Amino acid sequence: MREAEIPVTFQPHGRTVFVLDGSTLLETAAQAGITLNTPCGGRGTCGKCKVRVMRNADVPCDAEQTTLDASELAEGYRLACQTHVCAATTVDIPDTSVLASAFQILADARDAVTDVADAALRKVLVELPKPDRFDELPDVNRLERALEPFTLDLELLRELPEKLRVGDFYGTAVFADGHLIDFEQGDTRNECYAVAMDIGTTTLAGVLLDLTTGHERASVARMNPQTRFGDDVISRIQLVRQDATGLQSLRAAILDEVNEMIAELAATEDIPLSRIYEAVFAGNTTMQQIFAGIDPSALGESPFPPATGHGLAVRASELRLDIHARGSAYLFPVIGGFVGGDTVAGILATSLPESAGPTLLVDIGTNGEIVVYHDGRMLAASTAAGPAFEGARIMHGMRATTGAIEKVVFDGDARISVIGDAPPVGLCGSALIDVIAELLRHEMLLGQGMLLGADDVPDTVPQPLRDRLIDTADGPAFILANADETSSGAPVLLTQKDIREVQLATAAIRAGILILMRRVGLDVGDIERVLIAGGFGNFIRRSNAQRIGLLPIELEHHRIQYVGNTSLAGARLAAASRHARERAETWARQVQHVDLSLDVEFNNEYVTAMFFPE
Amino acid sequence: MREAEIPVTFQPHGRTVFVLDGSTLLETAAQAGITLNTPCGGRGTCGKCKVRVMRNADVPCDAEQTTLDASELAEGYRLACQTHVCAATTVDIPDTSVLASAFQILADARDAVTDVADAALRKVLVELPKPDRFDELPDVNRLERALEPFTLDLELLRELPEKLRVGDFYGTAVFADGHLIDFEQGDTRNECYAVAMDIGTTTLAGVLLDLTTGHERASVARMNPQTRFGDDVISRIQLVRQDATGLQSLRAAILDEVNEMIAELAATEDIPLSRIYEAVFAGNTTMQQIFAGIDPSALGESPFPPATGHGLAVRASELRLDIHARGSAYLFPVIGGFVGGDTVAGILATSLPESAGPTLLVDIGTNGEIVVYHDGRMLAASTAAGPAFEGARIMHGMRATTGAIEKVVFDGDARISVIGDAPPVGLCGSALIDVIAELLRHEMLLGQGMLLGADDVPDTVPQPLRDRLIDTADGPAFILANADETSSGAPVLLTQKDIREVQLATAAIRAGILILMRRVGLDVGDIERVLIAGGFGNFIRRSNAQRIGLLPIELEHHRIQYVGNTSLAGARLAAASRHARERAETWARQVQHVDLSLDVEFNNEYVTAMFFPE
Repeated sequence: MREAEIPVTFQPHGRTVFVLDGSTLLETAAQAGITLNTPCGGRGTCGKCKVRVMRNADVPCDAEQTTLDASELAEGYRLACQTHVCAATTVDIPDTSVLASAFQILADARDAVTDVADAALRKVLVELPKPDRFDELPDVNRLERALEPFTLDLELLRELPEKLRVGDFYGTAVFADGHLIDFEQGDTRNECYAVAMDIGTTTLAGVLLDLTTGHERASVARMNPQTRFGDDVISRIQLVRQDATGLQSLRAAILDEVNEMIAELAATEDIPLSRIYEAVFAGNTTMQQIFAGIDPSALGESPFPPATGHGLAVRASELRLDIHARGSAYLFPVIGGFVGGDTVAGILATSLPESAGPTLLVDIGTNGEIVVYHDGRMLAASTAAGPAFEGARIMHGMRATTGAIEKVVFDGDARISVIGDAPPVGLCGSALIDVIAELLRHEMLLGQGMLLGADDVPDTVPQPLRDRLIDTADGPAFILANADETSSGAPVLLTQKDIREVQLATAAIRAGILILMRRVGLDVGDIERVLIAGGFGNFIRRSNAQRIGLLPIELEHHRIQYVGNTSLAGARLAAASRHARERAETWARQVQHVDLSLDVEFNNEYVTAMFFPE
Repeated sequence: MREAEIPVTFQPHGRTVFVLDGSTLLETAAQAGITLNTPCGGRGTCGKCKVRVMRNADVPCDAEQTTLDASELAEGYRLACQTHVCAATTVDIPDTSVLASAFQILADARDAVTDVADAALRKVLVELPKPDRFDELPDVNRLERALEPFTLDLELLRELPEKLRVGDFYGTAVFADGHLIDFEQGDTRNECYAVAMDIGTTTLAGVLLDLTTGHERASVARMNPQTRFGDDVISRIQLVRQDATGLQSLRAAILDEVNEMIAELAATEDIPLSRIYEAVFAGNTTMQQIFAGIDPSALGESPFPPATGHGLAVRASELRLDIHARGSAYLFPVIGGFVGGDTVAGILATSLPESAGPTLLVDIGTNGEIVVYHDGRMLAASTAAGPAFEGARIMHGMRATTGAIEKVVFDGDARISVIGDAPPVGLCGSALIDVIAELLRHEMLLGQGMLLGADDVPDTVPQPLRDRLIDTADGPAFILANADETSSGAPVLLTQKDIREVQLATAAIRAGILILMRRVGLDVGDIERVLIAGGFGNFIRRSNAQRIGLLPIELEHHRIQYVGNTSLAGARLAAASRHARERAETWARQVQHVDLSLDVEFNNEYVTAMFFPE
């Protein structure tokens, strides 16, 4: 049963999101990228998440009547944590209710403004006096006299005399970190772009950034075409080790795709590729090495040493990227063979080492990387979680894109929410979490991971839900969307095998979290904030993530925050700011890598975590 | 009449040179690269050029008997300025008689040791602990831990993991200015070379430098193959302006030749090209721009602005040089469109701005460049002297190489000295100066430049000299070597047209000197030292250079010093020392360019200088 969603518009942000009936305003606001204050943990006692519901306000509950005064209630003020959406509405959010946090920009990066004051790229409009017999300064020195001393490549030096003369010594000098990379005819100061990309094992996501304003202008996401060579990095490293042309094939595949994505971003905004001067990439160590054409063979064998830990600042042409001919490219520093640039980008995006208290960053991609910050220290570990939450290895799994079921609620029957105005095609990571959590709650799924048949579920399970349990050749399955709801005419299923994949993924991550906690001498309860990163949906329901055991159940609910694709967010920061890159380089070197396979307790924890929490 | 030359060996230097009967020891020592003290100007009054003649000592002259005491005379001590070579001898030179001067290294660069303490290139032998599970540092960081932080290009980063493992983490790290350019298997610290080259309009000269010792290991000189496109820079610039492929053709021609010369240098010493890490080039502005692939069109039109005034430090591969794949190349800074990197190299080689008093540097190549230093200021001018002194535009002109007549003395007949053990082929610049000076002295050539016929010369001219004057289809000529002396069977001639070329060249240079003197407010007599640079022979006879008007006659004889190819000497310094490059960059920017064509007095001086001095 697919239901229409209810539109909720937030002011003064002007953002509208569509949610299922009964969602809290707190959750709805988060989905719109607005994180509200909830120091009480969303229990309705602190009053800090106060918002003004302009239409269709609920009747105030007891908590609201205690916390808010009569005049506030009369004006429509409610507590976001206690108010449930039941009809289309508009909500006014006071500044005081918004959590002032860097994480905000992550949850809704599209509207975020990246700080560009510190950008490496700088354009200066200049009009030079023309050379004459009494002013015969060489071209470069003439330009320096008007500006400041700079360096330039031979390639540009070869073109500069012509470029200066074609524009009659009037034009825009383009500097990248004090290095002259072009002299453009006329005033092009407003045409200044960068691309930032997350190059994941399974998914590639990129944005076009306007470096004059810091605004995102376009975004694009695609499947990593390397998946046809193997869906995890290990299989791709094996290919390189076995096949002399393996590296070349893998590199060509991603490079072509990335160049197409860049072309798409530029075309969307009608921008010539020559006006894109920077390209920043964050990915795991193997992805980054393959992308840079560095043999990843050493990453296939213990102790998995990367070629370098440093960020790679190179000419875009060295990577064969189709941006400005003398544009630059940057790949993030890495921590180890299996804790890569995406994790460093996440640390950067969340300013992890500047956290007020013990903080955990969990990035759920094809691998699950976990970083704990405590008392000036950072420890990181990687777990082989697998790509389940990105939709891979799941029968009807898919990325969080149009047609993906992104949310599932059991309410007598299964109600689903689909991304975009489209019939359901498959399910993305957030829906995977939802449906398993709901199956567990309804005891249709046992703690050890067995999906029950229609006849074996408790009597309390409503018939519509019971009807969704079917037997297939591969074992039991749960129907998320019936054949008549989809355009393909085939149902969208969650299979027993899918559930096993999720068990493996959640077990690895949860065990990793516990080991890291122990290493810094903390209990899960000591954690002040848990940041969940990943591209698996627009929003992750914290209670569901805990219900399936992805996060320890002991974690206080309100401490968990979904921060979106931090790899992309970090890449975006590094595209616009030199300081951000310096922070990334410094922080990467401060992280201590924990090899979980060397930890005697990890395997025990892992096996224990294979069971869904009771 | 070609005479055997007399060998003179100098100790403790161990150098032997061959000179004509009657040469002074002062001149002979200079030819061996040893400049003696002559504060009295070689008049035999100061005694500072005292040397000990071990065999065949002359009878002491009056001056020697006055200046030296009896015991000294008995031991064979003589004054080098007063002693004439008449038989094979060995001469012992006391340290106290040698002029302590930087110029020394120039006159005999082959034996000179360039200071390599400040070389940009550094090799470090390193043995790294291999990665294991408890030491999983990335490859680059592992190397940095053993050494110091460094940068490296993506190209090397791609190869580094393999290079480290092939050598089992033992090898030689090669740094260029702190940038890692290679990791070589085993201990290669002793294999470290550079090439330095003078890329002249007419002549290319290069040396192979051992960067571990500073010694020159091999040298090579060739004709610039671009001469087939035109023998001066103007005609080559015209070619580029008229023909779309002109720059490419000119560049390919010199590049191929330079790469062949480098290959020859390496082959001579049996060194692989991959052990040459640096290549430094000094040439005039047009030559350097063409060599770097920078369109020189702007240099063909007033105000002749170069593309850049700065030195060009680039990867050798960007110039397509066949040295180490990540070796570096450096082209000298330039002063203006017609005062180029060769002049800056000359300023560097002679440490011109560190001169004690007013100093003139005159570099006689295809153009004549003049730099005057006085009181902290440097002024430079270029004159279109033409390539006469390099042998071009002279009927039998040639470079100072095997078979070149390099010296001419009239002594009843013309006596010539030929470079190498070979019959005469032609004459080089120094012989050109000699023969014209002698013709003037014998009044066989008039002041306005007319060569007289055999019947028109004064009666005092001996018959053998008279017999050498002949008439040709192109006018009168002087026979330097008869047909029976040469291997070609044709005589070596000096023609009337040759003399006109020399008049044009000397007039331009002398007028230029006078104008520059005036600009700094000095008379020629105020000059403390005149440094004559150029590749036109092993030695230039100062009196002859003055006799033909190349240098003002007012200059005191002993103030003139021949310093050889300073363009090559400067390139050599810059190949071995970062400090030298910094000096070159700084000094280049301190020089004020004087455009002689803007000077109202230049044309007057030029016309006057067309006449040989009386």
